[in-house]
Amino acid sequence: MKAYALLGGPKKEWPKEIKQIFQNAAHQGDLIIGVDRGSLLLEEMGIIPDLAMGDFDSLHANELSEIESNVSDIRYSNPVKDLTDSELMIQTAFLDYQVTDLKIYGATGGRLDHFLVNLLMLLNPAVRRFAEKVTLVDCQNEIHYYLPGTHFVKQVSVYPYFGVASLTACKHLNISGAKYALQDFNSSYLRVFSSNEFKQEQNTFTLSFEQGIVAVIFSKDDQRFDNLN
Amino acid sequence: MKAYALLGGPKKEWPKEIKQIFQNAAHQGDLIIGVDRGSLLLEEMGIIPDLAMGDFDSLHANELSEIESNVSDIRYSNPVKDLTDSELMIQTAFLDYQVTDLKIYGATGGRLDHFLVNLLMLLNPAVRRFAEKVTLVDCQNEIHYYLPGTHFVKQVSVYPYFGVASLTACKHLNISGAKYALQDFNSSYLRVFSSNEFKQEQNTFTLSFEQGIVAVIFSKDDQRFDNLN
Repeated sequence: MKAYALLGGPKKEWPKEIKQIFQNAAHQGDLIIGVDRGSLLLEEMGIIPDLAMGDFDSLHANELSEIESNVSDIRYSNPVKDLTDSELMIQTAFLDYQVTDLKIYGATGGRLDHFLVNLLMLLNPAVRRFAEKVTLVDCQNEIHYYLPGTHFVKQVSVYPYFGVASLTACKHLNISGAKYALQDFNSSYLRVFSSNEFKQEQNTFTLSFEQGIVAVIFSKDDQRFDNLN
Repeated sequence: MKAYALLGGPKKEWPKEIKQIFQNAAHQGDLIIGVDRGSLLLEEMGIIPDLAMGDFDSLHANELSEIESNVSDIRYSNPVKDLTDSELMIQTAFLDYQVTDLKIYGATGGRLDHFLVNLLMLLNPAVRRFAEKVTLVDCQNEIHYYLPGTHFVKQVSVYPYFGVASLTACKHLNISGAKYALQDFNSSYLRVFSSNEFKQEQNTFTLSFEQGIVAVIFSKDDQRFDNLN
């Protein structure tokens, strides 16, 4: 079973087809998860989550009671805790529901401390082993995570660019078969190599490294809102 | 002299009063910097940057020649280089122009590999010593950076929340005098403590740590675009 989760990030960062994505997932019997305000946002789209979790401290009492009357599995997290709501959600999806794959929406934009918590949640040793099965998706980016080893990273067709971000100190990081190669790169701090591209007529590049966790960020330009100011 | 820089990030993330901010800065004789497409975006607002830098590879020839005819100091960066455009900009502002303070706009949103490059540029040892004089600003966040030591962090009035992000492994991290305290926290990987608040009638908290670099992210909620989907 696959899983689709919605967090509380701003709607302006959602893919425009988000309602369709969650409706299709629900029809296929995939697990639908709402985290905190994301639970309410799903209900506003007419989709009842299978699982809702969070401390729900940003919801009004009537909003929370609507969720409580609809959702069969609600987990209340402790605001003073070792795991954040998102980390707890990953743990619950993979351990309790044995999902094979988790796509997370509503994780980006807005308050940047929230975004960083979401971006970096897979660093937590409690959930790090699930990293390669988790993807963050917004209106112009898709973030995939990799654990140490050699990986053949396939292009995701709608995204012309990709960046490689070592989310930890990195050891023997290599990128080959892409427009810009990187050989045996080592750093004691985080590094991001942005704006790389797949080579023409080649839809895979090779990524290898020996330590930590690396994010590949697929991206596209988006001019939708550029005329708003 | 203070400096104000505009990078190429999407307009939807800019503070709504951005034109006024840059106009006031220009009138006061502060240094106005455009990085890559940011140079063009400044000209579109009727503001001629004092310094333009980047590889300008996202600009059309006519756009670049407009900048070349207006801007007195243009620095062309090498696309294959040790420093990113933003890192080079920081170095130039503090070393060549001896500015005392640098506010950076257009650094967030859009392609997330670009955002991460901007967020993390101050980790680079070549510019890290300037970290405490640099601030990133967007429509709902302001990011300040701190080097090891003890800091009395003052509230910035429009932001009710703050998060503390250790951008490196952290050693003996303490937060005191805030709603949520943290005592002698150590981690081998990045950690973000989000959604903290100043205590009532107290507009300062104490931050201390012994290693690396810590970002304090001041933030506010923003519902401006929440009805767009």
